[in-house]
Amino acid sequence: MIVKKYHEVEKTNVIEEGAQDVSIRWLIGKDSHAPHFYLRHFEIEPGGYTPYHAHPWEHEVFVLEGSAQINTKNESIPLEKGSFALVMPGEEHQFENTGDTTFKFLCAIPETGKK
Amino acid sequence: MIVKKYHEVEKTNVIEEGAQDVSIRWLIGKDSHAPHFYLRHFEIEPGGYTPYHAHPWEHEVFVLEGSAQINTKNESIPLEKGSFALVMPGEEHQFENTGDTTFKFLCAIPETGKK
Repeated sequence: MIVKKYHEVEKTNVIEEGAQDVSIRWLIGKDSHAPHFYLRHFEIEPGGYTPYHAHPWEHEVFVLEGSAQINTKNESIPLEKGSFALVMPGEEHQFENTGDTTFKFLCAIPETGKK
Repeated sequence: MIVKKYHEVEKTNVIEEGAQDVSIRWLIGKDSHAPHFYLRHFEIEPGGYTPYHAHPWEHEVFVLEGSAQINTKNESIPLEKGSFALVMPGEEHQFENTGDTTFKFLCAIPETGKK
């Protein structure tokens, strides 16, 4: 069993192309030996965004703080504290902070996804 | 893609033996066709607790509000907003509200777990 506080986990900048002012904490990652899926904590600063992209694994997202939108092929959908999302494999998506505070969210991915 | 707010999802009481004042929302469940894992939102009222038990699937937990403890075979570990936990398959555990407000947390389980 692992029990910790999220801020005890090291935060690193996401340097992937197309990402702006995004950081990540791997709360439950490969090192945890979690059998099926991993849990990450993201922060996007005001004006920041994740890459607009698609990949063959899903996201399960829950918004903790701030406001943003998820940009998809056809629309932009607002997100606020208490919003959740399922992004299916292959769906194009981008998270974009639309507020003036840090946007914080959880994003879980399957063990078969990006390491 | 599914985007919703958690309070839009129906909340039902957990009537499992050993549960006291616990309710659940299946944010991302079987109906969502999520490929690998599901996301649930739990509330435990003051004085309430989940069953003390073990099962062959893991939990990945993130605390949203309130204070509680996770009771295990050997100890009780405090939980507060921003705490997270990985409960491995087979580990005995119970979530118990130790505060005077509703304890709210997310709990993700693999698709192979309890439906």
